[in-house]
Amino acid sequence: MKVGIIGLGYWGPNLVRNFLAQPDVEKVVACDVREERLKLISQKFPSVILTKNCEETLTGDCDLIVIATPVAAHYPIAKKALENNKHIWVEKPFTANVAEAETLIEIAEAKNLKIFVDHTFIYNGAVIKMKELIDKNELGNILYFDSERINLGLFQKDVNVIWDLAPHDLSIMQFILGKKAKALSAHAIANFNGKENLAHICIYFEDNCFAHFHVNWVSPVKIRRMIVGGTKKMLVYDDMENFEKIKVYDSGIDIKSTEGIHEALVQYRIGDMFSPKVNQTEALSMGARECLDAIIQNRQPLTSGYDGLEVVKLLEASDKSLKDMGQIVEINHLVHS
Amino acid sequence: MKVGIIGLGYWGPNLVRNFLAQPDVEKVVACDVREERLKLISQKFPSVILTKNCEETLTGDCDLIVIATPVAAHYPIAKKALENNKHIWVEKPFTANVAEAETLIEIAEAKNLKIFVDHTFIYNGAVIKMKELIDKNELGNILYFDSERINLGLFQKDVNVIWDLAPHDLSIMQFILGKKAKALSAHAIANFNGKENLAHICIYFEDNCFAHFHVNWVSPVKIRRMIVGGTKKMLVYDDMENFEKIKVYDSGIDIKSTEGIHEALVQYRIGDMFSPKVNQTEALSMGARECLDAIIQNRQPLTSGYDGLEVVKLLEASDKSLKDMGQIVEINHLVHS
Amino acid sequence: MKVGIIGLGYWGPNLVRNFLAQPDVEKVVACDVREERLKLISQKFPSVILTKNCEETLTGDCDLIVIATPVAAHYPIAKKALENNKHIWVEKPFTANVAEAETLIEIAEAKNLKIFVDHTFIYNGAVIKMKELIDKNELGNILYFDSERINLGLFQKDVNVIWDLAPHDLSIMQFILGKKAKALSAHAIANFNGKENLAHICIYFEDNCFAHFHVNWVSPVKIRRMIVGGTKKMLVYDDMENFEKIKVYDSGIDIKSTEGIHEALVQYRIGDMFSPKVNQTEALSMGARECLDAIIQNRQPLTSGYDGLEVVKLLEASDKSLKDMGQIVEINHLVHS
Amino acid sequence: MKVGIIGLGYWGPNLVRNFLAQPDVEKVVACDVREERLKLISQKFPSVILTKNCEETLTGDCDLIVIATPVAAHYPIAKKALENNKHIWVEKPFTANVAEAETLIEIAEAKNLKIFVDHTFIYNGAVIKMKELIDKNELGNILYFDSERINLGLFQKDVNVIWDLAPHDLSIMQFILGKKAKALSAHAIANFNGKENLAHICIYFEDNCFAHFHVNWVSPVKIRRMIVGGTKKMLVYDDMENFEKIKVYDSGIDIKSTEGIHEALVQYRIGDMFSPKVNQTEALSMGARECLDAIIQNRQPLTSGYDGLEVVKLLEASDKSLKDMGQIVEINHLVHS
Repeated sequence: MKVGIIGLGYWGPNLVRNFLAQPDVEKVVACDVREERLKLISQKFPSVILTKNCEETLTGDCDLIVIATPVAAHYPIAKKALENNKHIWVEKPFTANVAEAETLIEIAEAKNLKIFVDHTFIYNGAVIKMKELIDKNELGNILYFDSERINLGLFQKDVNVIWDLAPHDLSIMQFILGKKAKALSAHAIANFNGKENLAHICIYFEDNCFAHFHVNWVSPVKIRRMIVGGTKKMLVYDDMENFEKIKVYDSGIDIKSTEGIHEALVQYRIGDMFSPKVNQTEALSMGARECLDAIIQNRQPLTSGYDGLEVVKLLEASDKSLKDMGQIVEINHLVHS
Repeated sequence: MKVGIIGLGYWGPNLVRNFLAQPDVEKVVACDVREERLKLISQKFPSVILTKNCEETLTGDCDLIVIATPVAAHYPIAKKALENNKHIWVEKPFTANVAEAETLIEIAEAKNLKIFVDHTFIYNGAVIKMKELIDKNELGNILYFDSERINLGLFQKDVNVIWDLAPHDLSIMQFILGKKAKALSAHAIANFNGKENLAHICIYFEDNCFAHFHVNWVSPVKIRRMIVGGTKKMLVYDDMENFEKIKVYDSGIDIKSTEGIHEALVQYRIGDMFSPKVNQTEALSMGARECLDAIIQNRQPLTSGYDGLEVVKLLEASDKSLKDMGQIVEINHLVHS
Repeated sequence: MKVGIIGLGYWGPNLVRNFLAQPDVEKVVACDVREERLKLISQKFPSVILTKNCEETLTGDCDLIVIATPVAAHYPIAKKALENNKHIWVEKPFTANVAEAETLIEIAEAKNLKIFVDHTFIYNGAVIKMKELIDKNELGNILYFDSERINLGLFQKDVNVIWDLAPHDLSIMQFILGKKAKALSAHAIANFNGKENLAHICIYFEDNCFAHFHVNWVSPVKIRRMIVGGTKKMLVYDDMENFEKIKVYDSGIDIKSTEGIHEALVQYRIGDMFSPKVNQTEALSMGARECLDAIIQNRQPLTSGYDGLEVVKLLEASDKSLKDMGQIVEINHLVHS
Repeated sequence: MKVGIIGLGYWGPNLVRNFLAQPDVEKVVACDVREERLKLISQKFPSVILTKNCEETLTGDCDLIVIATPVAAHYPIAKKALENNKHIWVEKPFTANVAEAETLIEIAEAKNLKIFVDHTFIYNGAVIKMKELIDKNELGNILYFDSERINLGLFQKDVNVIWDLAPHDLSIMQFILGKKAKALSAHAIANFNGKENLAHICIYFEDNCFAHFHVNWVSPVKIRRMIVGGTKKMLVYDDMENFEKIKVYDSGIDIKSTEGIHEALVQYRIGDMFSPKVNQTEALSMGARECLDAIIQNRQPLTSGYDGLEVVKLLEASDKSLKDMGQIVEINHLVHS
């Protein structure tokens, strides 16, 4: 397998390192127009073939093209790669809008090429553990999903905080809940350069389930936390914890028990808590493996273009909602083709 | 000063204890129709005069009537108290709707009686410290206010989670920001008895400031946390911390500094952090003192009927917004009279 | 049952309240020479009979004498109480030296009177849970017991930090380990008034088990934490945690696994963690109940004079060890009689 | 500058990386007898010259020999390096006993060669900040130093937990306190392979200052925490905190204030807390720089052979103390020559 990586920014060296480490990758080509980024890769990974020529990379002998450019460039590069019969790996968010995502899926389907969208957290041990617990029905029916990803973060020039951070959380939500959003409302402010830097997204589902997301580039504290409330148990995933990332609470709402009003007020935690061991393998390494396996086995990867499309739908809906102070926007799940 | 307390539920004994402890309170009358609540008060506070007769309490010789009944009963009792020339103390939320609040204010104004609304947190040491820091302009202009009050809490039969928990946070927001909300949107779900048990409220201000509130009766973890983001510094108030309740971060967004993108990613905290000592005097004791002082000095208390009204406006707006999946509702700040 | 309480200092009101709440206590007499302490009790608990006359209390009609004076006065009061055929409850530490403890036990045995030593933590839900887990052999053989109780605490005038704080931890150790100490070494410093304010105690057992205690009045942070290391599992009890006081780690030392040196370094937590629900009933209430039950059922209480004696032996040994910079002192477990 | 690194175990790749990154290092030779370690280095750092021949490395053209072998081999390699006129960098602990350390210092002095002992934490931002605060007399006189470094760690085959972990803490203590230990007592247990796996060390100083160290390979939780108590302020360094590693408490013991006994009990924290920003540069990078600078400038490095010797004295004293259950051992600070 030969891999061409286009875009060697912040995430680039991690991609290079992880593809180099796959035993069935025989060649890695890395492409960027910036001299200093090529130099950095050359120092760290001397076996990588370097080029400034994106065109050549796309038309050369690579089997898989990894696209890690700014989001606006995803579509033209991905399209050309598919047209040249390359499988593609695209960083999140998949594309800049729904139409682009649908077109790419259509081309790939027609040519039986694979699209892998790098929703990295789907390969994170804690997220896998959450999925496993929910699939075993440990939590019962899911009542709500609440996510917070806030930090003193970098202002992006090309996208707002929703497009930058929320793809992580939206993809996790889709993965573990496994159901489609019905409608979305987004509220935000832009305090500095016109791009929203703090946002809240609320998502409604058909079955009364509800999700909320807080993304924020201007928080003095770093919080990365999800709460999943179920009818049987509830779960907290705190990514800032060094060890106990997942906590499952054998607690919940027992309607009858709310009679004993004062006891409940005092007895804060009603049941035991359990914190399962979480696999600490690097998510990107598992993602690279899954991508290659999907190609070899000629099957959809776990995070395919369809998953990328669903996230882009929600991002696009958030843009629409923001235009009118949180107006509710319905989500259409049909794939146009 | 003679004080009559009506409603001896969960909060009642605290009210009795704190008014008894005021040196200028010569008599406390406590009133409830429930025998067992009277018995409890009698055992703990033998000097209190007990009665089941609310009417008598309202027309007797008390100077101040403390109303700690379910919210639906606030208005008729408060109205009668004012009509009998009593000052009133009303638990939060002040009234069940804006019209009631406005009528009570009108009556009190006409008779020069004082209305104290028990927004207890305004008398909490940590909140006072926040106010002090903001008033000294330590934080610069406030960009946003984010509040979370979630817990495995009691389901109320008469009100939803917004009316139950949000008055605390809305009153704190009003107190420390000192500006009026322009519009509000509320999103929520009701999983059990028809009353919403999880809600998110977003509030917009004229000057681009933004506030968000998460209130939740079905969280496995107890979180009571506020973040106040300013242009100069940022502050976190974590009420679950035993000691360091307030943390002030000498960090923020320096637009120029975001050029050095990679350094900023690594260097999470840019400045020092400072955690000021917080006064630990019981808030209710300070509230009781303020109420009595306002009466004696013939002035508005720090938490007057007007403050209660502003909170009720936001609560009423949240009801309206909830009816249409978070529709934006403008807040009218004129007092009708 | 009639109860006389002698000494109404810091702990006095709690004792009065808890004995008043026992259904089979018909009378509580409270005794102190300080007027203001009597007044405080009178205000809070009007049904209590107050007296400044200790002699009268000891010779009156009480069945049980509760001794909550400074430790130096425990022995003369306890002796007189026993001689007057009263059962006794003695605050920790039981006596000021081993000889006193042995004499009191001897008198009580001869007269079939009960001695209850108030090792309060033995009735604490978290400690009971630890005991339960160890008794079920969840942890395997206990390798070590490590305790830390540090705070910005009050300097006592009559005792050092070991006699003040360590009785809590020593009694917990004895209770949950259920084996006798073989030898002890204590290290300390006295920075202020000649009484040691920071100390470390190391205790050796016959079976290679080891215990360590850190007690400290001059710590800027409050830590109350115990670690119990077993061959199968390990446990942490953190009393400053609001909810998850006990955590049981399914982790340990697998001698074979230490070959894979690098993996172990990275994979910090090897197994799951479990935090059981802990009973939150006030320990003193359970202690009062146990004391009265032991008297009624004519049996040794869970925390008897023998338990008090064992703790005093360790405290006395610590004094001896301190005199020579931590010299090792053997513990003699014979009761002289 | 040419650098030869001998011993490519766990720490080896970090040493290679950091010396490679120094601009005045023109050549790095890496030496180990294990084929797989050489291969690892070759993959990551292709420019490094690899060899299995230690002898050759020591007699070749390197200016500085970095010794990262097991401690037993430090002395013979270091001696030969000095005899071949090489400066040396030695991993902690410097040597296996005092005599070896003294001999190496003597040889180096005679030949004006530099000995750098890799007490890495001395170059850690948080430790540097502690030193700075103490040197500015922010804390007043230091009353005590308390250190805890516990974890589910690796059992070493050649040394016990004291020789493995305590050098970090002992070197930090020496650096920030800047005074010599008078006497030491060590208590420990060996539960598995005969090497002590849990130990407590107490150190006495002339001026009544006191230090305590807890090192432990069998703790279910990872704690790396130091408390420094001063007469003016107190400090906590928690290395497990992601952001607020150093906290300075404006709290302390005011002898007079201990009269108001009850207030003090309730009012846990008496003053403000301050958490200064800490430099996050990798300590090893700063250490490598300091080593090279000391050679170039012909001066003692910040962590010289003398510092290494002091730590070895304490380690040797701990061995002696352990032989007799914590017997007190006096520390001799004369350098024999």
